[in-house]
Amino acid sequence: MWERLVESVPNVSEGRKQDTIEAIAAAIREVERVRLLDVDPDPDHNRTVYTLVGEPEGVRAAILAMFEVAVSRIDLRTHSGQHPRMGAVDVVPLVPVRGVTMEDCVELSRRLGQEIWERFQVPVYLYEESATRPERRDLAQIRKGEFEGFSEKIKRPEWAPDFGEPTVHPTAGVTAVGAREFLIAFNVNLGTSDLGVAKAIARAVRGSSGGLRYVKALGFELAERGIVQVSMNLTDYKKTPIPRVLELVRREAARYGVPVIGTEIVGMVPQAALDQVVEYYLSLERFSPDMVLERRIQEALES
Amino acid sequence: MWERLVESVPNVSEGRKQDTIEAIAAAIREVERVRLLDVDPDPDHNRTVYTLVGEPEGVRAAILAMFEVAVSRIDLRTHSGQHPRMGAVDVVPLVPVRGVTMEDCVELSRRLGQEIWERFQVPVYLYEESATRPERRDLAQIRKGEFEGFSEKIKRPEWAPDFGEPTVHPTAGVTAVGAREFLIAFNVNLGTSDLGVAKAIARAVRGSSGGLRYVKALGFELAERGIVQVSMNLTDYKKTPIPRVLELVRREAARYGVPVIGTEIVGMVPQAALDQVVEYYLSLERFSPDMVLERRIQEALES
Repeated sequence: MWERLVESVPNVSEGRKQDTIEAIAAAIREVERVRLLDVDPDPDHNRTVYTLVGEPEGVRAAILAMFEVAVSRIDLRTHSGQHPRMGAVDVVPLVPVRGVTMEDCVELSRRLGQEIWERFQVPVYLYEESATRPERRDLAQIRKGEFEGFSEKIKRPEWAPDFGEPTVHPTAGVTAVGAREFLIAFNVNLGTSDLGVAKAIARAVRGSSGGLRYVKALGFELAERGIVQVSMNLTDYKKTPIPRVLELVRREAARYGVPVIGTEIVGMVPQAALDQVVEYYLSLERFSPDMVLERRIQEALES
Repeated sequence: MWERLVESVPNVSEGRKQDTIEAIAAAIREVERVRLLDVDPDPDHNRTVYTLVGEPEGVRAAILAMFEVAVSRIDLRTHSGQHPRMGAVDVVPLVPVRGVTMEDCVELSRRLGQEIWERFQVPVYLYEESATRPERRDLAQIRKGEFEGFSEKIKRPEWAPDFGEPTVHPTAGVTAVGAREFLIAFNVNLGTSDLGVAKAIARAVRGSSGGLRYVKALGFELAERGIVQVSMNLTDYKKTPIPRVLELVRREAARYGVPVIGTEIVGMVPQAALDQVVEYYLSLERFSPDMVLERRIQEALES
């Protein structure tokens, strides 16, 4: 049906108030040429991940519609949650899915950055593939200091925003927009309440401190459940697959006598990443996606 | 496109001669309203599994076309292989996939049985859901004695064929046709050449001798590789899922100090059976097929 598909998974700094979460979803649903596939609120993080897919113009319009609601309803001065954040709409990733290049998504991120500043007076940083300088590729570097520290940070010349004046929006902060490859949000829950264990494991497995190349990781408390979590982003699942990450976390946890009690995938996951899980644990000698009945029927009926 | 879909995975007693394997595939491809999805020859078993999906009438015509080639080219008097067999076309399962009931597939098996006898003089036994008496539900019971023993067996009144005279076809033997649920052929390869270990594990895990309810299992030698295999059919993967079967085989093998060195899925597998593997090994707390990007896009574009 649609030839060109972009995915966006904006992260919004509200994971508790149902009316705000739903008002943002409703704004996206009103836009044409885009579909809202998933809404995943996390009360501990006080953050919601929306997953939308559509034609580039549909995605652009949906992101602007979402900003309109988020900026009017979210006040970061009173926001608390486990996850670092710097904006009401904290980050807007744009992912090429079909019929669009990474460069198309970079171009889309620039248009959006300009429009977000002009319409909402929220300064915008371009990150990942859209970054204008190397130190802005990494979202964590941009976000360092968070909302509370950004009034100072934004005044430093090296942290001037890519779009907008160096003035933080008083309630909605600043936003990062960028093109990137598909990212899997994969969390591992541990059978302990010791946050130190989760933080130590996060350090051990993440690429930045010597772990797996395409893993970003943080340790969190899940206060409601009395446990801790290693919360990860897998930025290239083809090279650093889910099962290898899980097994490394499991080995590290075993050093502390701590069991893995469950995992979560937040938002969407590509089929190929789950196929890797099947191949890994079954030690399948000749796995091919063509073996899967539904996919073969689909192909056969389309041919 | 097609509203009514039946799957058939006929097993043919030729897994080595490429020209015969291909001639049978070509005969199926000429038939309308059916698609040949997979051809999986096994030289050790000297057996090929064809997977076809189509409208009931297409499947019926394809099975008859396959018989025509198989009966003219395969001579069981000179056939050898690891897998038990009683016919050139050894077994024809019919599986309801979409828009057809099990009863529709039973009816189709009866029509096919009548036609196979009339056109090729191959006696036919109805098995599984199509069975005319309880002791014929189980294919292994029908096949006992194999081609070599069937000239005697077929003369016993209790083993009179469901279609045809009690006379084995001289070169093509007899055939079983039946409606059944989706069956997964799952093999586990072991790091030993000791056939006794594979047979002992097969006995331990199969339902008939006290193991898992919906597992059938045999121990085989893979002579070419110098290893042995536990070759299984999972007759209801929803109730006896792949990962539980693999882990039980692994535990039993460990008793003999034997490692699992790989597994195979022969033919097709439903997506839901692979989803079980992902859920099991990741201990995913909130897995849903809707999390998979490709499936959500497909749904969203169709809605």
